[in-house]
Amino acid sequence: MQLAFTPDEIAAIVQPRAARGTTTGPIRGIAALGTARPGDLSFLGNPKYKAEVAGTQASLVLVPPDYIGDPRPDQLFLVVDQPSIALARLCARIELMLRPPPPPGVHSAAIIAPDALIAATAAVGPLCVVEAGARVGERACLQASVFVGRNAVIGDDCQLMPGVRIYPGCQLGQRVRLHANVVVGSDGFGYELINGRHEKVPQIGQVVIEDDVEIGAGSTIDRARFGRTVIGEGTKIDNLVQVGHNVVIGKHCILCAQVGISGSVTIEDYVVLAGQAGVGGHITIGRGVKAGGRAAITADVPADTYVNGNPAIPYMLERRIAVLKQRLPELFHRVDELEAQVKKLAGAG
Amino acid sequence: MQLAFTPDEIAAIVQPRAARGTTTGPIRGIAALGTARPGDLSFLGNPKYKAEVAGTQASLVLVPPDYIGDPRPDQLFLVVDQPSIALARLCARIELMLRPPPPPGVHSAAIIAPDALIAATAAVGPLCVVEAGARVGERACLQASVFVGRNAVIGDDCQLMPGVRIYPGCQLGQRVRLHANVVVGSDGFGYELINGRHEKVPQIGQVVIEDDVEIGAGSTIDRARFGRTVIGEGTKIDNLVQVGHNVVIGKHCILCAQVGISGSVTIEDYVVLAGQAGVGGHITIGRGVKAGGRAAITADVPADTYVNGNPAIPYMLERRIAVLKQRLPELFHRVDELEAQVKKLAGAG
Amino acid sequence: MQLAFTPDEIAAIVQPRAARGTTTGPIRGIAALGTARPGDLSFLGNPKYKAEVAGTQASLVLVPPDYIGDPRPDQLFLVVDQPSIALARLCARIELMLRPPPPPGVHSAAIIAPDALIAATAAVGPLCVVEAGARVGERACLQASVFVGRNAVIGDDCQLMPGVRIYPGCQLGQRVRLHANVVVGSDGFGYELINGRHEKVPQIGQVVIEDDVEIGAGSTIDRARFGRTVIGEGTKIDNLVQVGHNVVIGKHCILCAQVGISGSVTIEDYVVLAGQAGVGGHITIGRGVKAGGRAAITADVPADTYVNGNPAIPYMLERRIAVLKQRLPELFHRVDELEAQVKKLAGAG
Repeated sequence: MQLAFTPDEIAAIVQPRAARGTTTGPIRGIAALGTARPGDLSFLGNPKYKAEVAGTQASLVLVPPDYIGDPRPDQLFLVVDQPSIALARLCARIELMLRPPPPPGVHSAAIIAPDALIAATAAVGPLCVVEAGARVGERACLQASVFVGRNAVIGDDCQLMPGVRIYPGCQLGQRVRLHANVVVGSDGFGYELINGRHEKVPQIGQVVIEDDVEIGAGSTIDRARFGRTVIGEGTKIDNLVQVGHNVVIGKHCILCAQVGISGSVTIEDYVVLAGQAGVGGHITIGRGVKAGGRAAITADVPADTYVNGNPAIPYMLERRIAVLKQRLPELFHRVDELEAQVKKLAGAG
Repeated sequence: MQLAFTPDEIAAIVQPRAARGTTTGPIRGIAALGTARPGDLSFLGNPKYKAEVAGTQASLVLVPPDYIGDPRPDQLFLVVDQPSIALARLCARIELMLRPPPPPGVHSAAIIAPDALIAATAAVGPLCVVEAGARVGERACLQASVFVGRNAVIGDDCQLMPGVRIYPGCQLGQRVRLHANVVVGSDGFGYELINGRHEKVPQIGQVVIEDDVEIGAGSTIDRARFGRTVIGEGTKIDNLVQVGHNVVIGKHCILCAQVGISGSVTIEDYVVLAGQAGVGGHITIGRGVKAGGRAAITADVPADTYVNGNPAIPYMLERRIAVLKQRLPELFHRVDELEAQVKKLAGAG
Repeated sequence: MQLAFTPDEIAAIVQPRAARGTTTGPIRGIAALGTARPGDLSFLGNPKYKAEVAGTQASLVLVPPDYIGDPRPDQLFLVVDQPSIALARLCARIELMLRPPPPPGVHSAAIIAPDALIAATAAVGPLCVVEAGARVGERACLQASVFVGRNAVIGDDCQLMPGVRIYPGCQLGQRVRLHANVVVGSDGFGYELINGRHEKVPQIGQVVIEDDVEIGAGSTIDRARFGRTVIGEGTKIDNLVQVGHNVVIGKHCILCAQVGISGSVTIEDYVVLAGQAGVGGHITIGRGVKAGGRAAITADVPADTYVNGNPAIPYMLERRIAVLKQRLPELFHRVDELEAQVKKLAGAG
C-alpha cells in the first residue's frame, strides 16, 4: 500500500475486542506473517499458519480470540473475531483512499448522445463516448475513455475502467466490473468460403453479462451470430481471455488468464479453467468441472470431473501418463534388453 | 437480434417466390432450426438439416423451392431461391438498423492535424486522433477514439472500431475492418545483448494490410525491422492474435484466436491456423496448410499438409501417437509381464 | 523504410573511413545482404555473412575495415569501423524523421488534474488523462489517449504510446517504453469462495516498473494484493503478455509474446521465456534460466538451466523424450513382436 496509519487509526477501523502489546510509529504495509517486516501489519487468517505468528517481524498482527501467544517487544496484537474480515474492512478503507470514486455527474469532456440515459448518480469520466439510446445505471462509474455503443445497457453500480469498449446492443447487469481495455461485443469470427474468398457471416447478436461478473484487462467477448453470448452471474474472468461468439458461460465460473473459448461452447456453473486452457468449438463442459493450466478441451466433459493435458483427459490418468512419458528412455532400453534376451533364448532353443 | 419485424416486413426484404401458411405477431429472433422457438425465424440453409424443418418451433422458416413439406399451424414458410442468401440480406438490413453507419464528416471532438487528408465521404468519430500527413479514404469510418499516426494511410471503406491504434507510416488497403483495440505497427521485438544489457534494434519498417482483411479485437501486428510486415488480401484474423515483425501472411488465410506468429515467418495463401497455435521464427508455411488448435509449428511445413501437435507433425501421425500415448500404462504393464516371463524362460533354460 | 537518401546523405550520417565504388540515385530501403535489391542499403554486421557481400544486389553496403572485396558496377561500399553501429546511427536518424518526438507541452485536448505535476519538458498529447497527484517526468512523452491514474509516477524520458492505461499509484522508472494499449496495475485475480460466491480479495498494492523496461502492445501487468508487482531494470516484454499479481521479475529478462506468468512468481535476472510459455503460481525461476516456446513451468527451476516442454523439464531430456514419443508406433510394434516370440518360446519350453 502507499499509505501510513497509526496503530490507533487501525484499531478504529478493525474495532478489536482487545489489544496486547504496543507498537510505535506508523504502519506502512501489509504482508503475510512470514514475509512481514517491521512497520507492516499482518494477520492470522488461517489457523494453519498459527506457528508463524511467534516469529513474524510484523509490528501489528490481527489475531483471533483463541490465539494465546504474546507479542514481542514493540509489537501489537489486535484481537478480532475474524482477522480476514477485519483485514478486508481495512483494505476496503485503503482502497477508497487510494482510488476514491469519482463524484456523480458527466465530465465536461465526455461525449454523450442526446438521447442516452445516464442516471443522475452515475459518474461518466473524461473522454467517454456514450452513443444514442444507451443507458448507464445508478452509481455506475465509467472512469475515462470508455466507449458505450448504441443502445447498450450498463447496469447499476458497474465499474468500467479506462479504455473499455462496449459494442452496440450489449447488456451489462449490476455490479459488473470491467478492467482496462476490455472489449465486449466484437464480431464473432465466422466466414463462408465462396469462390475462394472468405465471405463474412453477419454477426447481429449481442453479449449479455449478468450481475457481479468481473473481467480482466484486455479480455475480449464476441457477440453472438444471432442470439446471445452470455457470461453468467458471479463469473470471474482474468486478463487476455478470449470468449467466442454464442458461448454461454454459467454462474460463478473462474476463467484464468489467457484462456480461449471457441464459438458455441457451453460452460455450466462453477467451472474453473486454469491459465492458458483452451476449449474447442461446440463443446459442453459440465457443472463443477476443473481444468488444469494449458488443458486443451476437445470433447464434452461430464460434470464434476477434473481434467488436464492436451487433449484434456481425467487428471489422475493424465498425471500417470505424464510420468510414464518421462520414463520412455527407460522403456526403450528395457525393450532393447528384452529383444536381446529373447533373441538369445530363441537361439538357445 | 434486438428488433421485431412483421412477417410482411420480412417478406418485403427476402422477396419470396411463394409463401405457405401464416403466422401472426412479430418475429423477434433468428435461430437454427433445432433451437428456434415461437417468434423466431429459421432457415434451411443446408439440405442435410431438411429433416429438422418438420419439427422446428420457428414461426417463420425460409425454405428452398425444392422443399416439399407443409408448415404447422401458426407457421409461415417463405420459399426463396437460396435461403442463406435471403438470410444474409435480412441480416444486413438488421445490422444497418442496429449499427447505422455514422454520417460523413469529422466530429467536432476529433483531433486532426492540419495537413492530414480526410476524404469528404469519410466519417471520423469523436476523440479520434489523426496525425500529420495521414490519409483517410472515401467512406472510411473511424468510429471513436481511433489513433492514426503520422503518414499512415487508411484506404477506402475501412472500418476502424473504437480504440484502434495505427502507428506512423502503416498502410491499410480498402475495406479493411479492425475491431476494438487492435494495434497495428507496434515495434518488433528485437534486442542485442551488449555488455549485459538488451540494446534495442531500431524498428523502422512498416505494416501493410491489404484489401478485405479483418482483424479481431485486441490483436497486435508489429512493424518490420526495415521493410514490411504484410497481411495479405482477404485474410481474416481473430481476437488476441500476435503477428511479429517482418511476418508475411498471404491471401485468404484464417488465423483463429490467440494464435502467435514469431518474427520473419512466411505464411502462404489459404493457410488456416486454429486457436492458440504458434509458429516459431523464420519458418515458412506452405499454401493451403491447416494446423490444429494449439499446434506448435517449429519447422517449415510443405503446402497442403494438415499438421497438429507440439511439435506439429502430420495430423494422422499425431492422432496415432496421441492414442498410443494414452496406452502407455498398458505398454509398461506389458513390458513388466514380458520381463517376468523372459526371466522365467531364461531360468528354465 | 519510407524515405529516400542520397549516398552522400548516408555518408554524412555514417562518417565512413573510406569509400569504394559509386552508386547513383536514391537509397530507398535497408535489407539483409541476401534479400537486398538495387536501391537498398545493406551491411556486413556479422563476419559469418562475409561471403554474401560479393553477391548482394544492394546499391550501398556498409563494410568493416578488414573486408577486402571490391564493389560491383553501380555499387558503393562505405568502410566503417563497426557496420552495426553505423547502421544503428542511420536507423536512429530515420526513426526521428518518421516519428519526430512531439514538442514539449500539454496538448489543449488533454485532461490534467490541477494538482498533477507535469515536467516542463514533457509532452502530453491529445486526449490524455492525468489524474490528481500524478507526476510525469522530464522529457516523458504520453503520445495520445494515455491514462495516468491518481498518484501514479511516470519517470523521466518514458514513452507511452496511444491507449496505455496506468492505474492509480503505479510507478514507472526512467526510459520506460510502453506500447499501445498496455495496461499497468489492473486488479490481481484473487477471490475467496464464500457461500457459493467468489468474493473479491481486495488488491491494494501497486506495480513498480524499473528503468529501461519496454513492454509490448496489449500486455497486462496486474498490481499486487498488498505490496508490489515488480518488473526489473532493463527487462523487455513482448506483446500480449500477462503478468499476474505480486510477480517479481528481475533485471534484463526477456518475455516473448503471449507468455503468461501466474501470481506470486519470482523470476530472477537474465531469464528468457520464449513465446506462449506459461509459469504456474508461486514458482521461482533462477537466474539465467531459458525456457523454450510454449514451455509450461510447473515447479521451481534452478539457475542457468534450459527447460522445455509441458511440464517443462531440462531441454535435452525433453528433446529425447519428444523423439521417443514419435517412435511409439514402432515401440508398440516391437512389444507385439516380443509377446508373440515369448509366447512361442514358452510354448516350445
